[in-house]
Amino acid sequence: MTTTDETRPARPAGRPRSARAEKAIIEATLDLISESVSLSELSIEAVAARAGVGKTTIYRRWSSKEDLVVDALATLKAPIPPLEGRTVREDLAVYLEVIGREACDVRSRCVMNIAMNEAGRHPQLVERIRQAVIKPRREALGALLRRGIETGELRPDLDLPVAMATVVGSMMWYVKSAGFGGVEEHPEDLVERMVDHLMAGLAPR
Amino acid sequence: MTTTDETRPARPAGRPRSARAEKAIIEATLDLISESVSLSELSIEAVAARAGVGKTTIYRRWSSKEDLVVDALATLKAPIPPLEGRTVREDLAVYLEVIGREACDVRSRCVMNIAMNEAGRHPQLVERIRQAVIKPRREALGALLRRGIETGELRPDLDLPVAMATVVGSMMWYVKSAGFGGVEEHPEDLVERMVDHLMAGLAPR
Repeated sequence: MTTTDETRPARPAGRPRSARAEKAIIEATLDLISESVSLSELSIEAVAARAGVGKTTIYRRWSSKEDLVVDALATLKAPIPPLEGRTVREDLAVYLEVIGREACDVRSRCVMNIAMNEAGRHPQLVERIRQAVIKPRREALGALLRRGIETGELRPDLDLPVAMATVVGSMMWYVKSAGFGGVEEHPEDLVERMVDHLMAGLAPR
Repeated sequence: MTTTDETRPARPAGRPRSARAEKAIIEATLDLISESVSLSELSIEAVAARAGVGKTTIYRRWSSKEDLVVDALATLKAPIPPLEGRTVREDLAVYLEVIGREACDVRSRCVMNIAMNEAGRHPQLVERIRQAVIKPRREALGALLRRGIETGELRPDLDLPVAMATVVGSMMWYVKSAGFGGVEEHPEDLVERMVDHLMAGLAPR
């Protein structure tokens, strides 16, 4: 990922160097977390050592470990693209594609799992992750399903909280159980099949 | 949980004392894991100290840390009850009830999450959890859904792997996202609503 920097002959002073250090710090944070150092044990010292920077470089940019972890997680979680396709079905596919890709990212999964596991110890961190990552995703999906009810593409009597859990959970669990079985590759048509299944449900028509 | 033992005046020698020690060791293991000590850092020393037993007491019963963790996890994971209700719908409710109860157990969730996070480091442990916990659950659900297809209660063209992910994932994600929001209480009719939703799907009929 640093190839461009390394091969570029001349580099302007100041900002790029700082940007490079930031990137190294973020990567070090994510690596250390995904190596299962718990949040409590994640130290600025360890991040500094791994990133090859001094602790002051980190403290200049992030005032606490929580800030650093939230920013590191944010780099893995791209904003949900606007869901404005022609049909709700198409947008559901876009949504599942995004969360499926995120769920496949080992580091992203680790940070989320560890944050969950330590919710009791780090309530503020969990709250910030909730605001930065979970809430926008929930809102986007809620708006999409409500739009589908309005347009008649989805059932008028849809149980929204359960429907949302079903959409997200289907993809999350598929990825998780594949990972647990040691299989990280998913069928190419997974999103399409999942949308088909979610739309149709289990019962015969 | 040890009340019965403590209030019982006379206690036969040997087995009960050993059973009590075993219970303390299992509890200490689960507590330490759920306090987010990673598996790599979980030590027999720490378990012995927490349980108030000597290390030899642990080694007499468990030859490795992996054995201990698998046995500890097994105490949280009751076997899936036989799914032999009158209808597939009823059995689906039983299944969701069981996995929902398990998913609500913080310690159970922690052990599973940590094992997942460290799958690369502890492949044998993950394989044993897969055999002891995940495989029987997958098989029970697979058999149930296949029965439903045969009886006509479920769609003949059901996409089985996706359907399984949807059933399990709906409950898991509901519990997980509720936990992330700090809400651990679920509506009393959650299982019923979930079965309704899973059967009917998203599209209008």
